[in-house]
Amino acid sequence: MKCKICKEKAIIKLKRHNIKLCKEHFNDFFLKQVDRAIKEFKMFKKEEKVMVCVSGGKDSLVLWYVLKKLGYNTVGMYVNLGISEYSENSKKKVLKFAKLFDLEYKIVDLVELGYPVPKIAKESRRAECSVCGVIKRYYFNKVAYDEGFDVVATGHNLDDEASRLLGNILHWNDEYLKKQVPVLPAEGKMLKKKVKPLIRLTEKEIASYAFLNKIDYLIEECPLSKGATSLVYKDALNLIEENIVGTKQFFYFQYVKKLQKELEHSQNKIGSLKECKICGMESFNDICSFCRLVRNEEQ
Amino acid sequence: MKCKICKEKAIIKLKRHNIKLCKEHFNDFFLKQVDRAIKEFKMFKKEEKVMVCVSGGKDSLVLWYVLKKLGYNTVGMYVNLGISEYSENSKKKVLKFAKLFDLEYKIVDLVELGYPVPKIAKESRRAECSVCGVIKRYYFNKVAYDEGFDVVATGHNLDDEASRLLGNILHWNDEYLKKQVPVLPAEGKMLKKKVKPLIRLTEKEIASYAFLNKIDYLIEECPLSKGATSLVYKDALNLIEENIVGTKQFFYFQYVKKLQKELEHSQNKIGSLKECKICGMESFNDICSFCRLVRNEEQ
Repeated sequence: MKCKICKEKAIIKLKRHNIKLCKEHFNDFFLKQVDRAIKEFKMFKKEEKVMVCVSGGKDSLVLWYVLKKLGYNTVGMYVNLGISEYSENSKKKVLKFAKLFDLEYKIVDLVELGYPVPKIAKESRRAECSVCGVIKRYYFNKVAYDEGFDVVATGHNLDDEASRLLGNILHWNDEYLKKQVPVLPAEGKMLKKKVKPLIRLTEKEIASYAFLNKIDYLIEECPLSKGATSLVYKDALNLIEENIVGTKQFFYFQYVKKLQKELEHSQNKIGSLKECKICGMESFNDICSFCRLVRNEEQ
Repeated sequence: MKCKICKEKAIIKLKRHNIKLCKEHFNDFFLKQVDRAIKEFKMFKKEEKVMVCVSGGKDSLVLWYVLKKLGYNTVGMYVNLGISEYSENSKKKVLKFAKLFDLEYKIVDLVELGYPVPKIAKESRRAECSVCGVIKRYYFNKVAYDEGFDVVATGHNLDDEASRLLGNILHWNDEYLKKQVPVLPAEGKMLKKKVKPLIRLTEKEIASYAFLNKIDYLIEECPLSKGATSLVYKDALNLIEENIVGTKQFFYFQYVKKLQKELEHSQNKIGSLKECKICGMESFNDICSFCRLVRNEEQ
């Protein structure tokens, strides 16, 4: 197996691109894919302040590493979810990584704030993953707003987004389907732009990049995510991808293309933003999702 | 395990309906599902002449059996595809079935006509399944038109249609997506209405019905269909269904609902029909798909 570019020994085969690459050229390829996503979807520019949401897992640490390597102006943002040992371990990984590469970061501690995920899930009787999503999205945006960041970047990859798209299509969740793009534009004065620079890369590619570049990430998955339906959609898509190479990428990016066209024609249809009566952050409701959740009120 | 209706011993568990049934009540359930599909989608009425396309496999023989049982006016239609032993075996099953239940049928013999599927596939260098589809659709319609049938019924089931829908969505085949409904209306003077009365039933349910009612069908699959991509989509959907019960049915029927709404608003957009310059059947092109195929001309 030889590298397509330099003919040296290849260490990875990328079926959907039909190429084999050595370590050096895989690293090049990887950076180019991130760079291409950032430019193609106009995610951010060199002079903008990027908040990178980091969990200690492979995707977010690789994202932070690569954005730094590409010369972007980043600060990490870690949320301690209060999920016992898992949270402690993930925090350690983030701090170690930041120290090693001399990177700036911020921490939101849900335990100190009184909102650890398991407690809020129990009180609200809602699924943990859903509660975790609401709380994280709230603080990602709040910190970005309070500290004057231009954009919030997360480590979502092609598998995450294609499988989420599949799940939303199988259940025809129209509201979610409208938001499945690699860039959510800023809205109002407080809702920051959200971007996914790893969108052109798969889980396997990101794990390989982390391994080759000795990025020490938390392999342990969140104990609360066991049996999550998202994993079922990922397995189903991988089964298809193994037989019909390229399906995952085509499925997702073709959808994004179609959706972007539609959105261009209907940009005025977004609801109107108000300030949440409790916390003051902008929301499409009188009370924002986060405040409704932690106050355990009807959704 | 007890029957939900009579509390006798149940012989089948229908997870997505959350019921267990005995033989008698499963048979009732099965007939009701077919009856419901026929009425809900306005497929045909008692006085109309229904041509049932039969291959000798479980779906088509069960369909013929059930339509007869429900009192519809049916004639079977068998196409000898010329696929060696498989075709001979399937023909035997159809003839035996028709004799046993004293049913009327018609036969189109592609070998006699000079169009056996393997030959046409080789000459046109097209995939066998695609060639078979074009030829069958042509003769199903032609015979229905020549012999004055009102409607053409095929044995497609929920698995067939949901997996085809999944494949078409994953590859965003917009043209095919517009046609994925349980009823295709008649068009022009010659293109007959096409219906799928088994749409509310899964492969497993149909196989169970055939077994319980001693319908002797050909278990052997077409040797040319091995490795067909449709099987991959079926496996993927079954994987999801096992974990998230009801997905297949919701996915398909919700899509049909959405599509029907769209079609109502755009009924004038269909292209105009002409008579094929070679065979005289109506087509959206100067020469119909069948004539282009068997004359091996550019598609």
